Amino acid sequence: MTGVDELHVAGATYRVRRATQEDLAEIVGLLLDDELGSGRESADDLGPYREAFAAIDADPAQLLVAVEDPAGLVVATSQLTFIPGLARRGAWRAQIEAVRLAAAHRSRGLGAALFAWAIDESRRRGCALIQLTTDKKRTDAHRFYDRLGFTASHEGYKMML
Amino acid sequence: MTGVDELHVAGATYRVRRATQEDLAEIVGLLLDDELGSGRESADDLGPYREAFAAIDADPAQLLVAVEDPAGLVVATSQLTFIPGLARRGAWRAQIEAVRLAAAHRSRGLGAALFAWAIDESRRRGCALIQLTTDKKRTDAHRFYDRLGFTASHEGYKMML
Repeated sequence: MTGVDELHVAGATYRVRRATQEDLAEIVGLLLDDELGSGRESADDLGPYREAFAAIDADPAQLLVAVEDPAGLVVATSQLTFIPGLARRGAWRAQIEAVRLAAAHRSRGLGAALFAWAIDESRRRGCALIQLTTDKKRTDAHRFYDRLGFTASHEGYKMML
Repeated sequence: MTGVDELHVAGATYRVRRATQEDLAEIVGLLLDDELGSGRESADDLGPYREAFAAIDADPAQLLVAVEDPAGLVVATSQLTFIPGLARRGAWRAQIEAVRLAAAHRSRGLGAALFAWAIDESRRRGCALIQLTTDKKRTDAHRFYDRLGFTASHEGYKMML
């Protein structure tokens, strides 16, 4: 993306744009405000997050976005990664990680609007496939992804190093 | 990785190295020699694969490897993607895609040795997590990943664009 895109949700206009260093504290706040994330994040020291932000921002394959509500507060975030591959005759794939919405802005259609935007952006980048993994414990999220048209065709394996 | 790593498997030495343009036809052959891949790949025209290879090779976040058997034939491949992220206090994650082994070299321990190498390489790159998704139809692969110590903690959602 090169500028700002608008999301129209229940009569309100939200703005999606590339995240900047100035959004970092608000985005970390969204990571903390999460049933699984609260135990593994810490806002006491933003240093590790600043370093990670610099790596994300420097990599053209990464697109971290901030979503502003009509008042200009950052109320949602997501990270898209665009991955070139040989399989499927050299198809690019988009991967969505770290989707977070502020509690007060959930269940209004903002999540669906953000995903619709992410799907459009992935098409603009020439991706043939969009993918994500979601913790098997997030059963509400599964219904949401099913409704959006995703298929839970794969097992998502992880290993901590 | 900066050079060549060795895998010692059942008394034989295989070599893992960064794939080059010259490996492309052999790697596409491995993609074709696959229960799910045979219908979606085509070796008639390497053009799309050449273009994808150039994108992979130009991106420092991507590491596509070729594995040579003792005779110097490319008998396995895999692609690692190193993804910076804010979550988990700015943790990097490694993602494995497109793991393929030639049929004649399966069930000997080469796959496990290649994964052990990928895990080591991911640690060297500072990743806190390694992840992959695998089609729910590949039940043999699931037992393999379970044995390696991966946990099928996530649902893998995909959507074709």
